Amino acid sequence: MQDIMTSWEVLSKLVSAGNSAELIDYIDTLSPPETARAISRLTSEEQQRLLSILSPEDAAEVIEDIPEVQAAEMVEEMDIGQAAAILEELDSDHLVDVLAEMDEEASQAILNRMDQEDAEEARKFLEYEPDCAGGLMISEYLAYKADDTIQDLLDDLHQNREEYADYHVQYFYVVDKDERLIGVLRMHDLLFPRRTTQLAALMIPSPLRVKDTTPLKKLRDFFEEHEFLGVPVVDEDDRMVGVVLPGAVEEEVSKQKTRTFLRLSGIIGGEEFRTMGLLSRSGRRLAWLTMNILLNVIAASVIAMYQDTLAAAITLAVFLPMVSDMSGCSGNQAVAVSMRELSLGLVRPSELLWVLAKEARVGVLNGLVLGLLLGAIAWLWQGNIWLGVVVGGALAANTLVSVLLGGMLPLVLKRLKLDPALVSSPLLTTVTDMCGFFFVLSFASAVLPKIIGS
Amino acid sequence: MQDIMTSWEVLSKLVSAGNSAELIDYIDTLSPPETARAISRLTSEEQQRLLSILSPEDAAEVIEDIPEVQAAEMVEEMDIGQAAAILEELDSDHLVDVLAEMDEEASQAILNRMDQEDAEEARKFLEYEPDCAGGLMISEYLAYKADDTIQDLLDDLHQNREEYADYHVQYFYVVDKDERLIGVLRMHDLLFPRRTTQLAALMIPSPLRVKDTTPLKKLRDFFEEHEFLGVPVVDEDDRMVGVVLPGAVEEEVSKQKTRTFLRLSGIIGGEEFRTMGLLSRSGRRLAWLTMNILLNVIAASVIAMYQDTLAAAITLAVFLPMVSDMSGCSGNQAVAVSMRELSLGLVRPSELLWVLAKEARVGVLNGLVLGLLLGAIAWLWQGNIWLGVVVGGALAANTLVSVLLGGMLPLVLKRLKLDPALVSSPLLTTVTDMCGFFFVLSFASAVLPKIIGS
Repeated sequence: MQDIMTSWEVLSKLVSAGNSAELIDYIDTLSPPETARAISRLTSEEQQRLLSILSPEDAAEVIEDIPEVQAAEMVEEMDIGQAAAILEELDSDHLVDVLAEMDEEASQAILNRMDQEDAEEARKFLEYEPDCAGGLMISEYLAYKADDTIQDLLDDLHQNREEYADYHVQYFYVVDKDERLIGVLRMHDLLFPRRTTQLAALMIPSPLRVKDTTPLKKLRDFFEEHEFLGVPVVDEDDRMVGVVLPGAVEEEVSKQKTRTFLRLSGIIGGEEFRTMGLLSRSGRRLAWLTMNILLNVIAASVIAMYQDTLAAAITLAVFLPMVSDMSGCSGNQAVAVSMRELSLGLVRPSELLWVLAKEARVGVLNGLVLGLLLGAIAWLWQGNIWLGVVVGGALAANTLVSVLLGGMLPLVLKRLKLDPALVSSPLLTTVTDMCGFFFVLSFASAVLPKIIGS
Repeated sequence: MQDIMTSWEVLSKLVSAGNSAELIDYIDTLSPPETARAISRLTSEEQQRLLSILSPEDAAEVIEDIPEVQAAEMVEEMDIGQAAAILEELDSDHLVDVLAEMDEEASQAILNRMDQEDAEEARKFLEYEPDCAGGLMISEYLAYKADDTIQDLLDDLHQNREEYADYHVQYFYVVDKDERLIGVLRMHDLLFPRRTTQLAALMIPSPLRVKDTTPLKKLRDFFEEHEFLGVPVVDEDDRMVGVVLPGAVEEEVSKQKTRTFLRLSGIIGGEEFRTMGLLSRSGRRLAWLTMNILLNVIAASVIAMYQDTLAAAITLAVFLPMVSDMSGCSGNQAVAVSMRELSLGLVRPSELLWVLAKEARVGVLNGLVLGLLLGAIAWLWQGNIWLGVVVGGALAANTLVSVLLGGMLPLVLKRLKLDPALVSSPLLTTVTDMCGFFFVLSFASAVLPKIIGS
């Protein structure tokens, strides 16, 4: 507990003192997550003061350490000119990530105050979907002409050493006068030949490339198939516009997994951190919960319909939530397997029948086992075998329904271009609740005298 | 639907025909996920035949395309000698990943039949935890002595061009006679100086390194702080043993997210694919579900205790599942936020009070809103304001309980070294169910005459 309080308190104290050198020295001793945690615990005023004390370069380094949502929030509250000065110091990909988290108006205001060339590039990047090649590429790459010699290239490297230090220089690209990609060289291709050799003689002609609109999935396949350290990105006229690094692809895949996890858990509309405002945290959670309450009313209306049966055999009330919860769990297992198989490409949205056939067998088997188990529990607990038959039978039937539904939902939602992570679980729960209540209560009403006889 | 059936059917036909050249040509036209899907749909016999028709090199390429679990299953069923021949062709990291998915006995049997040097290396790698530097590193790196010249290095590169083609050659490492790491060179450091220069004069001395036991989290921090293309790994004697690439770190983070997602959904004991056997799929799902049924019995026993109250006011039965489901959802939101903040390092397991204070405010606010909403629904639906008060009050109270519990569970479980993804949700549901039932039924029994009066 101590060192946490310390890093945050130290930072707070340094901000009050206002010594920028001490401040950046201290931040340099923290790892990025420590920096992010310490800053998140400062008040909004302290955060603003922190960014304004630091030089734009140092402030940009801090911004790179903290999650984008948090960074965007801090930047939005700043003076626009100051914000622009800091954002100009970011890499193109970081810049776009932070701007993308801000609302349109705020990001435009900042772009208007930035260096025109940088701003124009950022605007171009912002137009791309974040999960396609255009959204994932960096614009820091090195391109030469075919009649340049190795010596020309080396001279350029030498002269611009400092600027290129931040570049991921794995490959040198060769473009024609219209910036169309015509060749590629690896760094070790330069080690052996004479320095007067023209790049045209060394380059691998017509290298593999991807369109700027290439989706994440294809990029992932590309890097699985080819052990490249980057792939050039071209626009519709085959002009080179950037390079996608495999790390950016992995990172985006990882981000999407996070989004899936959060959405499945009912955190919608982006990340929630506990340092955010109470109203925004509460409001976003409620948006999902209130929808859920309505779905619950629909499901519970089945119980209301059978109120007389339930009144006659009140013991059933003990088992209603159990059947609904257990079926929900079975269904969620099937949802998870389908979502995983979809994301690995092991199943396609159109293969509904194959999935249903596979789930049906698990559903029957697990339904039998769980039905027998719950049936036995009900029988032994309440001393009425018919109660056991009703409850066990209902769970067995509903297990089959829920694995079939859970297995197919992600495929169907994907075909309808809806997000399975967002819609599967509430939909599944509502339907399996309804069916579960219906099975228990309708089975019970069919044999009501035998149950009441207990 | 057609092209799926095709790729799988074509493969099946080619396997029957047994022409290895045609087979590998066809597989080369498929992307890795397509290969994985097509192979997963073959019968076990066809899979075995496929691997035995191909040369070990080609078979290894196929193995690299499919998920490790699936690959391990296929290899386990093969003749040991044949399996060893194929696995020898894999990269060190792929090899270890596949062996790690097999049971101890099977993997040892294969290692005993492999080239001794490769096997020894693989055994060493297998000893590391998969999520530390030793488990993530590759052994394919280039190391030279300090008195080697640039020319020596270039000669070596030239002579071993083919072998090095698969290496990730970003850096050249300089080691002393005991293999202790003393320096590093980037490839572009070689471009400018004279070829007779000794590496000692060019290298960056005492480069940053990580211990082989460094955990994933630290590696992630390392690559966030340093834009390196790889970091050398040393053992406890500071001898260089491998290189961790940033991609391997990202991939492991991504794998852990998948594991979290699966466990949260009740898929435990590793991946489930629908191509696996029915009994293993069903059994693993049941392992989790049967534990859950017992937790459900515990929760439902609260209802049994209040059976008389419930019998007197049967309408309550409609609202019991709603209160329990809604509270479960509220709690899961808090669980998700805590798990996310933990994984980002924004909160530490010891900061329980901070989390509770933050969740309490959301819990009170959301409890009020949801309680009023459900209370109003209950009142309007059943025409009894006291029923609304009981149900709404119970949901309000239980919302607070569940967000507090949901927020703290991941932190507490982490401190107890238990996996939050595995334990949070069942534990949360059981407790919030019990509390929810208790609140509804005990509140109701306190004002029973007013409710029955409806």
